[in-house]
Amino acid sequence: MAIQPLRDTKAGVLRTPDIGRTVRIAGWVARRRDHGGVIFIDVRDASGIVQVVLNPEDAPASEEVLHGLRSEYCIAVEGTVEARPAGTVNPDLPTGEVDLVASSLTVLSAADPLPFQITDRVDVDEAKRLEYRYLDLRRDKMANNLKARSRTVQAMRRVLDADEFLEVETPTLIASTPEGARDMLVPSRMRQGHFYALPQSPQLFKQMLMVAGIERYYQIARCYRDEDLRADRQLEFTQLDLEGSFWGQEDVLETLESVVCEVVKDVRGIELSRPFARLTYAESMERYGTDKPDTRFAMEIADLSAVFAGTGFKAFAGVLAGGGTIRGINAGALGLARSGLDAQVDRAIDLGAKGLVWMVVQEDGSLRSPVAKFLSDDEIVGIKRTLDAAVNDVLFIVADAPKVVGKVLGSLRLDHGQPAGHEDLNFLFVVDFPVFEETDEGGLVAAHHPFTSPHSVAEMRDNPGDALSNAYDMVLNGVELGSGSVRIHDPVVQQQVFEVLGISEEEADLRFGWFVRALRFGTPPHAGFAIGVDRFVSILQNEPNIREVIPFPKTQTGGDPLTGSPAIVDDTQLGELGLLIAPAVRAAWADESDL
Amino acid sequence: MAIQPLRDTKAGVLRTPDIGRTVRIAGWVARRRDHGGVIFIDVRDASGIVQVVLNPEDAPASEEVLHGLRSEYCIAVEGTVEARPAGTVNPDLPTGEVDLVASSLTVLSAADPLPFQITDRVDVDEAKRLEYRYLDLRRDKMANNLKARSRTVQAMRRVLDADEFLEVETPTLIASTPEGARDMLVPSRMRQGHFYALPQSPQLFKQMLMVAGIERYYQIARCYRDEDLRADRQLEFTQLDLEGSFWGQEDVLETLESVVCEVVKDVRGIELSRPFARLTYAESMERYGTDKPDTRFAMEIADLSAVFAGTGFKAFAGVLAGGGTIRGINAGALGLARSGLDAQVDRAIDLGAKGLVWMVVQEDGSLRSPVAKFLSDDEIVGIKRTLDAAVNDVLFIVADAPKVVGKVLGSLRLDHGQPAGHEDLNFLFVVDFPVFEETDEGGLVAAHHPFTSPHSVAEMRDNPGDALSNAYDMVLNGVELGSGSVRIHDPVVQQQVFEVLGISEEEADLRFGWFVRALRFGTPPHAGFAIGVDRFVSILQNEPNIREVIPFPKTQTGGDPLTGSPAIVDDTQLGELGLLIAPAVRAAWADESDL
Repeated sequence: MAIQPLRDTKAGVLRTPDIGRTVRIAGWVARRRDHGGVIFIDVRDASGIVQVVLNPEDAPASEEVLHGLRSEYCIAVEGTVEARPAGTVNPDLPTGEVDLVASSLTVLSAADPLPFQITDRVDVDEAKRLEYRYLDLRRDKMANNLKARSRTVQAMRRVLDADEFLEVETPTLIASTPEGARDMLVPSRMRQGHFYALPQSPQLFKQMLMVAGIERYYQIARCYRDEDLRADRQLEFTQLDLEGSFWGQEDVLETLESVVCEVVKDVRGIELSRPFARLTYAESMERYGTDKPDTRFAMEIADLSAVFAGTGFKAFAGVLAGGGTIRGINAGALGLARSGLDAQVDRAIDLGAKGLVWMVVQEDGSLRSPVAKFLSDDEIVGIKRTLDAAVNDVLFIVADAPKVVGKVLGSLRLDHGQPAGHEDLNFLFVVDFPVFEETDEGGLVAAHHPFTSPHSVAEMRDNPGDALSNAYDMVLNGVELGSGSVRIHDPVVQQQVFEVLGISEEEADLRFGWFVRALRFGTPPHAGFAIGVDRFVSILQNEPNIREVIPFPKTQTGGDPLTGSPAIVDDTQLGELGLLIAPAVRAAWADESDL
Repeated sequence: MAIQPLRDTKAGVLRTPDIGRTVRIAGWVARRRDHGGVIFIDVRDASGIVQVVLNPEDAPASEEVLHGLRSEYCIAVEGTVEARPAGTVNPDLPTGEVDLVASSLTVLSAADPLPFQITDRVDVDEAKRLEYRYLDLRRDKMANNLKARSRTVQAMRRVLDADEFLEVETPTLIASTPEGARDMLVPSRMRQGHFYALPQSPQLFKQMLMVAGIERYYQIARCYRDEDLRADRQLEFTQLDLEGSFWGQEDVLETLESVVCEVVKDVRGIELSRPFARLTYAESMERYGTDKPDTRFAMEIADLSAVFAGTGFKAFAGVLAGGGTIRGINAGALGLARSGLDAQVDRAIDLGAKGLVWMVVQEDGSLRSPVAKFLSDDEIVGIKRTLDAAVNDVLFIVADAPKVVGKVLGSLRLDHGQPAGHEDLNFLFVVDFPVFEETDEGGLVAAHHPFTSPHSVAEMRDNPGDALSNAYDMVLNGVELGSGSVRIHDPVVQQQVFEVLGISEEEADLRFGWFVRALRFGTPPHAGFAIGVDRFVSILQNEPNIREVIPFPKTQTGGDPLTGSPAIVDDTQLGELGLLIAPAVRAAWADESDL
């Protein structure tokens, strides 16, 4: 048994004023070097690193210990803080002016040879990192990511607690929720053959809290979606969920600004300027070709339809006659060779365009382009003026249906303009989303959950393609960080909206009957929002993948290489739930084990 | 559309200095009285209640609105704050010196007739309350319970954040955990026939965080247990989970004291004195007959074996000769008639005793008791001295095996001494729990999870009945509020403990192989704890049932009367998971629908 307490100071805090003190530290062997009998050990704990100097003649650690002492052994050291000898001060290390000269060293716990080194400088296969996550998290970068995450939610709570929000825990074993993605299910043992669902969000319960008169609610909520996993999705994820009564849209957005500014100040150390820009959905689509514009750079999409109003270039004239549009971006002096420019055409076609026109502004002011010969002088002047074109600038023009034009130019804009990583942070709100989205087949589907209030039910019914809703998103550097809406608080409107959205009366009653009934007891006007915590922290930490800010994430197939979940369970346990494995699944297992 | 913002002040904050101000409030109609054309409305919002005075001639609300305005309508009112006329001041209401004289009233949302009144004074069937939970939560008592819960977790975080704990979210879709209760399962769609488990606690992951060098971790964690529900259990519950590296037991207990004192100060407004008492398990069993003693009152169990060492009373002599013990409590002047005293004997037999001796101290110092005639004078003196007996005191004596004696006297002690409710708060720690518990059949089972460090592995193997572990509980008013332990950090010890606990090498490897492997990479000594948040808040709020402090709890059969969960899901969804409903369950459904 080692002496108690195991340590009386942290390793990373020792400084010149501590010289002469006798202290005890505990931590991990980050590095060990032997110099003519004297051993130097960098000992790391959560606070940092200090160099321990151990002369085996002075310290009663056994030879066996000293020879076996390897990287990541967990040790306790008692010793005296001394000034480093002249010339050996390490200015890169906060403790670099001192050594801890050991009088004793105890091994608390040995370490097997490591599957990978504990350093930020080595690239390790992610599967291996997840299998040994407890070692992966010892790396500075990962430890800092966890710290940033903890500080992020702390800062969120600080703002909302001060603003008299009530933190309320809503249930996670619930009835199926209506967000649209697949629910994860939990079989009930007490009611065999019945299932709970894990929440995709606390949406209906937070609205119930508003009916209950809570007025200001928030929760850092675990949510679940059974989707095929992309790089930025997990089966379980975390959101800051909030809702307020007697609130309109602007109340929500101002609260969000307060929350986000506090987080960024705490984690990044910078003050954002407020208010954030508010952009309508229509304007965002027009200027950026997307509802989540990255506004860290301009390169906005400009409308060239007027320039080509009377064009003799048949391809363009035909598009305009067919109700299409002609737009372009100035991608700047890309310095692309012909092959590079042609590659842009392929990219545009991949994105759904029938073609792409590129133009390069020549020294003499003329345009080099496959279509140059079809353009009038006025058109060339018009293009250059509209796109603010200078010598060597590359211009991309697409003529097509507005949706296609937006998608293609929006993507090319990101290809050529978007900064790598997230050094700068550019927040904005996109507001006035449409009620319906057009599908690729030209039909309409609800763009949001059915509790979002429309600007007008009549408009929604009579002119669905143009109808707008009180829904809004928060966008950071081209990433949708969260979304929300002013909710429907009138049960009559709620039923009308179900109807217009094509949810049958029977289905609405079955799925939401209890909810609509609740609205009939004096429901206050209310509005809310949810911010994705994983994504927010990953951007703040400049990580390309949310798995880097989740302590124990799942792989893209939903597995955990550390613990081996999900796993087969025994038939007794399944029997208690009144369930059987489908024969086809069992057969597939048998096939696998044959291999 | 009502004017924006809907309100510019809260209802409950209006006071004399506000007189003359024109304000807008929004809230619910708590009460409405008509007095000769003038209408008085108590409007309630989350901050409190204010009386609105509405003269239909001054305010342009329609007759229809005024006549229809019922309890719990949600309304907005604009008006002028005025002093109440002399004689109408209401000293019971914080806003009782003012009226809000309305210039306009808008109905934001109507309310159907209520299933029950929104008042703390009416007793409503719990099933009805849960079905209309959104109305139930409008009652002051329930709203206060939610506020107390929010403040409880805030206070916990305040202490731990200041102490440099890192809040880390551990996964909730995990491999089966070893706590012993049944896991709730979540079928995987991507790996059909495989299951995640919902965590019974974050135990293994928090230990992984210690291996990862996090050093100080906490989380307000949702946990799950598929147990048949008792009054104080839910399928999902919340615990404050924490763990620290380079920690011993006393470090944990001191941190817990800090956390608990801050919570009690915040929610109850009182300063607890520190340190809390530490009682060994052995002492607790001896003095209180339980490992969760209610120490708000004394009535301790006293050992009378010495008094009866040479007794001629054959029943007692036989017990002593057989290795049993004789103990008693002084239950005080209960004033019970003979029938009441005999009822205590029945109670003792229900609790497992072969009998119970009662004695009542008479005015003349003699003992009235069915066994009085068998007792010597010395024995009577010894009993009275040992139990500090005064005239009219009722003494209960049990002679049996120590376990039975403790259980019976511990229960009688609570029956006759325990205060109702939780006005006073009495915290203590019980330490040095045994490694094994004796079963009713006389066998031994592990008392804690297998990651708890024993005082000595050798003792645990050689003398299991007496072996102690570094496990400890926190007890409040006779309720176990949480438990923890110093963990095993040595993989060799961990494997030895599995072995002694009767977990086969194969099973240990299958269930915990990954965990033991992790211990082999420099695991620091560590220790931790978990506090049940639901139970803690229910005691702080003096509620007999944790459902009163959970916004949307389940019934004892695991159902939610509000939303109807759990529910039957369609076969397609089940098919995607590779599952079938067992034919017997389907048959049972059919039988039910026949009824």
